[in-house]
Amino acid sequence: MFLREFFKPHSVAVIGATGKPGKVGRVVLENLLSCGYPGDVYPVNPNDREILGHRAYPSVMELPEVPDLAVIIIPAAAVPGVLEQCGQKGIKAAVIISAGFKEAGREGYRLELELEEVCRRHRMRVLGPNCLGLADTTTPMNATFARTSPMTGRLAFFSQSGALCTAALGWTREHGLGFSKFVSIGNKMDVDEVDLLKALEDDWHSRVIAGYLEGIKRGDEFLRLAAEVTRKKPVVIFKAGTTQAGAKAVSSHTGTLAGSENAYAASFKRTGVIRAESMEELFHVCRGFSQQPVPAGDRVAILTNAGGPGIITADALEKAGLKMAGLEGKTVERLKECLPPASNFYNPVDVLGDALADRYHHALEALMADGQVDSIICILTPQAMTQPEETARALVECCSGKGKSVFAVFMGGAEIDGAEAILHAAGIPNYRFPEIAVRTIRAMVEYRSYLNRERDEVAFFETDRQAVEKIFSRVLSEGRYQLGEVEAREVFLSYGIPVARTLLATNLTECISAGREIGYPVVAKIASPQILHKTEVGGVKVGISNTDELIEAYEEINANVRRLMPNATVWGVVVQEMLKPSRELIVGMNRDPQFGPLLMVGLGGIYVEVLKDISFRLAPVGKMESMEMLKELKTYWLLRGARGEKPADIAAVAEVIQRVSQLVTDFPVINELDINPLRVFERDAGCVAADARIIIGE
Amino acid sequence: MFLREFFKPHSVAVIGATGKPGKVGRVVLENLLSCGYPGDVYPVNPNDREILGHRAYPSVMELPEVPDLAVIIIPAAAVPGVLEQCGQKGIKAAVIISAGFKEAGREGYRLELELEEVCRRHRMRVLGPNCLGLADTTTPMNATFARTSPMTGRLAFFSQSGALCTAALGWTREHGLGFSKFVSIGNKMDVDEVDLLKALEDDWHSRVIAGYLEGIKRGDEFLRLAAEVTRKKPVVIFKAGTTQAGAKAVSSHTGTLAGSENAYAASFKRTGVIRAESMEELFHVCRGFSQQPVPAGDRVAILTNAGGPGIITADALEKAGLKMAGLEGKTVERLKECLPPASNFYNPVDVLGDALADRYHHALEALMADGQVDSIICILTPQAMTQPEETARALVECCSGKGKSVFAVFMGGAEIDGAEAILHAAGIPNYRFPEIAVRTIRAMVEYRSYLNRERDEVAFFETDRQAVEKIFSRVLSEGRYQLGEVEAREVFLSYGIPVARTLLATNLTECISAGREIGYPVVAKIASPQILHKTEVGGVKVGISNTDELIEAYEEINANVRRLMPNATVWGVVVQEMLKPSRELIVGMNRDPQFGPLLMVGLGGIYVEVLKDISFRLAPVGKMESMEMLKELKTYWLLRGARGEKPADIAAVAEVIQRVSQLVTDFPVINELDINPLRVFERDAGCVAADARIIIGE
Repeated sequence: MFLREFFKPHSVAVIGATGKPGKVGRVVLENLLSCGYPGDVYPVNPNDREILGHRAYPSVMELPEVPDLAVIIIPAAAVPGVLEQCGQKGIKAAVIISAGFKEAGREGYRLELELEEVCRRHRMRVLGPNCLGLADTTTPMNATFARTSPMTGRLAFFSQSGALCTAALGWTREHGLGFSKFVSIGNKMDVDEVDLLKALEDDWHSRVIAGYLEGIKRGDEFLRLAAEVTRKKPVVIFKAGTTQAGAKAVSSHTGTLAGSENAYAASFKRTGVIRAESMEELFHVCRGFSQQPVPAGDRVAILTNAGGPGIITADALEKAGLKMAGLEGKTVERLKECLPPASNFYNPVDVLGDALADRYHHALEALMADGQVDSIICILTPQAMTQPEETARALVECCSGKGKSVFAVFMGGAEIDGAEAILHAAGIPNYRFPEIAVRTIRAMVEYRSYLNRERDEVAFFETDRQAVEKIFSRVLSEGRYQLGEVEAREVFLSYGIPVARTLLATNLTECISAGREIGYPVVAKIASPQILHKTEVGGVKVGISNTDELIEAYEEINANVRRLMPNATVWGVVVQEMLKPSRELIVGMNRDPQFGPLLMVGLGGIYVEVLKDISFRLAPVGKMESMEMLKELKTYWLLRGARGEKPADIAAVAEVIQRVSQLVTDFPVINELDINPLRVFERDAGCVAADARIIIGE
Repeated sequence: MFLREFFKPHSVAVIGATGKPGKVGRVVLENLLSCGYPGDVYPVNPNDREILGHRAYPSVMELPEVPDLAVIIIPAAAVPGVLEQCGQKGIKAAVIISAGFKEAGREGYRLELELEEVCRRHRMRVLGPNCLGLADTTTPMNATFARTSPMTGRLAFFSQSGALCTAALGWTREHGLGFSKFVSIGNKMDVDEVDLLKALEDDWHSRVIAGYLEGIKRGDEFLRLAAEVTRKKPVVIFKAGTTQAGAKAVSSHTGTLAGSENAYAASFKRTGVIRAESMEELFHVCRGFSQQPVPAGDRVAILTNAGGPGIITADALEKAGLKMAGLEGKTVERLKECLPPASNFYNPVDVLGDALADRYHHALEALMADGQVDSIICILTPQAMTQPEETARALVECCSGKGKSVFAVFMGGAEIDGAEAILHAAGIPNYRFPEIAVRTIRAMVEYRSYLNRERDEVAFFETDRQAVEKIFSRVLSEGRYQLGEVEAREVFLSYGIPVARTLLATNLTECISAGREIGYPVVAKIASPQILHKTEVGGVKVGISNTDELIEAYEEINANVRRLMPNATVWGVVVQEMLKPSRELIVGMNRDPQFGPLLMVGLGGIYVEVLKDISFRLAPVGKMESMEMLKELKTYWLLRGARGEKPADIAAVAEVIQRVSQLVTDFPVINELDINPLRVFERDAGCVAADARIIIGE
């Protein structure tokens, strides 16, 4: 098992252990000693011979054996020296709980670099520094300084915030959520989320993996590994710092950049990672995954003893994109036989306010047998006759371990605590309000669709890679980073991306022959690396229909630019074929520092600018993902042909996206790329890049 | 006080009281006797002489006085007779807890009609039937059959679902939310939400009014009253049945129609009612309103002992449209003086993980004195050194009753229960997760903006009302409901709404002279009450530039229609001026059965059809609301002139909306009205209704 020394150590040294009340070094030792840990625990402290009844050692060097794991809780300045000793002793894994490193200013930053060097030199693996520690309830082993210990369960959890760990321990205990592994990753100097995914991938104690993250360190490895892990078990992540205000708070907190929200969203989509929108949602969703089977589909049956909550739940289902299950005829018959006539026999099934546990029992049996029902939400409101505990027992009896997902919504306060305990003991999550049960089901159904969907095969297009290489090295050798329009056109043509016929004219004579060669009507545009918004400086003329008009346009464009941007380098005037009417799209790429090439597509003009109707994916994409990008657009209908218009050539656009994907994957030197606009014609008539921009870097 | 007999009765008769354990009649009596109710309680039951130590009476008629209130808990079939007796005795108010009426099928429906008749005849006010009862903690009086009694507080709550009432009592007790009044309104046969708003409007015990509703009975009165009440205190409503699935569940539950979601949304907007998206949000938001002052503005300061939750809160604030407060220089100075150097002195202020209560105390004093801070979120995670209780006391000491809104987010489980109790006792709401604190602040800030905003003055336009009356009576007298295009045009002109010049030609000669009169180019369209989609039957020709073309168009349109819709009544051909290029809007009205005329506006074509970018308001609207309608559109930027286009004549559109508003308010006979398209020209060039449809009813 990867990182075995952390989770299943044969022995643990606690460096900085102490008997002094209120000290972190005491809490860690107490937790280790009281959790049932079967291995040896060695307190290390130069000042004590015995701590809490256990023999203490003055230093790591004196230990009678080489422990698997060292837990370090001493002042920051002393940590590098002690870690060096651990290395010399031959210890392979250490948890550094001490704070005062990268998170604490310049001196701390220097100390952490020192630590890193020690860690690398001795090939040790280090968790932290600046963390709460870790626990494995299956060993069992608790090397945290949390005062509440994690309950046993099937959730593996890691968190970049130690404080949220402590809060989580208290909260989850109240809500019946147990952990297999519980890891505070602190500053992530060495062990990070990628390592943990690797360690948890095949851990059969862990049915679901959850994480709180402010940033991801190794984007490419995360992408590769997460995609593998999610095929085996769900991964749910709550990513903080997604807004400007949040990102600012992240950077003032840990000095790390939060990264681009669009790239994170795309990376989660790519890898099937489920995204939680809040800490509360993270845990509620994980309760579902860790305790119930993943529903086979999206059809939900509601069982209730009151109309109101049934309505609220139906609302929530529709808003979440789930379906109200249509019950089978024989289910309705069974319900009619066993429920009073005033009940509602259709979904939501209402057993009425005076229902005792037996009515729930009958109804649950009928719903469990219904092939049209993928999951059940069982609602109970504590009314005069209600039997919360007995009903909980009925629920457990009818549903537990029968392969269909069941979620309880027993509402209220103390009066349902007993029933909730029965449910939680049997692994049926209870939610106090229906909406959060619905959000849980939605996340689980989303995971099911991810598992069901075909893998996207990335196509390989024949291209002239060498031609592109030549262009890029020429541009770079000239000290430039932006390609000219004609250069960009050559790059696209080499990758089979259709471009408008374009010629660069450096003087009037060339311009006139360019017009003849391309054939009228044409468009003329200024060619200058400094001029990005050509129209605004009078640098574009469209609809030029003969040589006279072209000459006039050439003179006028040059005059305009000389007047408005006298210092711009002018390469000449670009003459381009005039395209027939079409819909306009934007296709682009930005290279994200974490996750690499981020592709984007949107309908041109106001749709992108005003409606922000853009979709993102990480390259490389196959046909499926490129089609998904288009279908995600709110304005996709426009491409399909709204109001009697003919449909656009969507297949051609999807191919352009894939070819751009291949181009930016082949050439990491490309930093930015924009086709704006991509002119898209009617079905089977293709599309053409009318204007393009490529920026490269070394 | 309105409905005084319900909330502050001098004496109460409990009809159906019993000593038998487990019976609703016993629970009600016990609640009344044990809640400290100062008035007289008279058990009524023909079978007992004494119940729970109190003298019982065989019938209402034998009671020694006329009680203020009767609470009825007897089988449904016997209720009308007993209510009749109550009426004869002179009782003015009754709570009917018994179920088995409108909610229970045909026989129940008949019984409820009978009840209604008795109620009306004796001019009694009746709450219910089919409800949990009501409680007033200030009397105190508890005439419910809930096993958990409401805590004292400042929230007045009413609910259309009795089951949710019982769930709410348990939940709110655990979260420190107390009630002034607690009312289960059941079937709303007589007393409804409008009555309750009236009763609670000036009740100084109630600082906030909250309701769970599946429908509103008297839309117009609700609109009038709610707008008044919200000026005095916040009203928060959770409306269920807003989706198709939910509405279906409502109608199968109570047999009432859920009504149009757009009309509800518009009615809440109009009246300043705050809308909760879930029961949980309803209560959390009400905890804020009932315990904290409404923030003066949207600037929020975060105080925390951990980075992670600070980031999460900053994210949530930005997503909610609230602002991270920028702290004053002197606040930062004060923080630097009293906090350790590794702290963060800017928002979010981080007092670090080892903070004791004193750091919170210092920081809170500084933030309370900061004029740039409207409200404070104080976060605590339970770490090794943390002092939850002492910190809670510091929070109470620094912030309670000082006029600035403060919200606690002490996170975790049992370890913060003690601190939470201290906070709740002092009226500082604690939230276990930051997102819900942020949602609460957002709702309160939204209420503040509502209070701050100017009232919208509805303009009065001079119109020719008589002309419209004449047209409508002529149409109705002909047995028609849809106006012809020329009739609709006259209606609009009478109300000062510009319309395209239009003439109806019933034969070719008239057509030719219409073309001459209007002046070329013109448009020709078929005029027929049966043909709604004129283009699809070849019934429209545009760009007709001379008489020859007009003759051809006339023949062709008639031929097309005869061929494709041979049975349609054809009034003739409408000749209309050809308008210059413009942006197209849709302005319309539908009469909602609850709330009356619902105005809508959207950008024409695909924006409405595909993007569903439409905004709604209830008529009458003034200039402010009509401008708000336009600004709410996602595509509003298009009207302001995106990408170098000149701005459209927005003022003219706003005036058309107001004139339509006056028209549909003056004429309740108008059921539907559509201007589609409204052609809008550049600024100061006005707009013109190019096609219009009016449907009236008797």
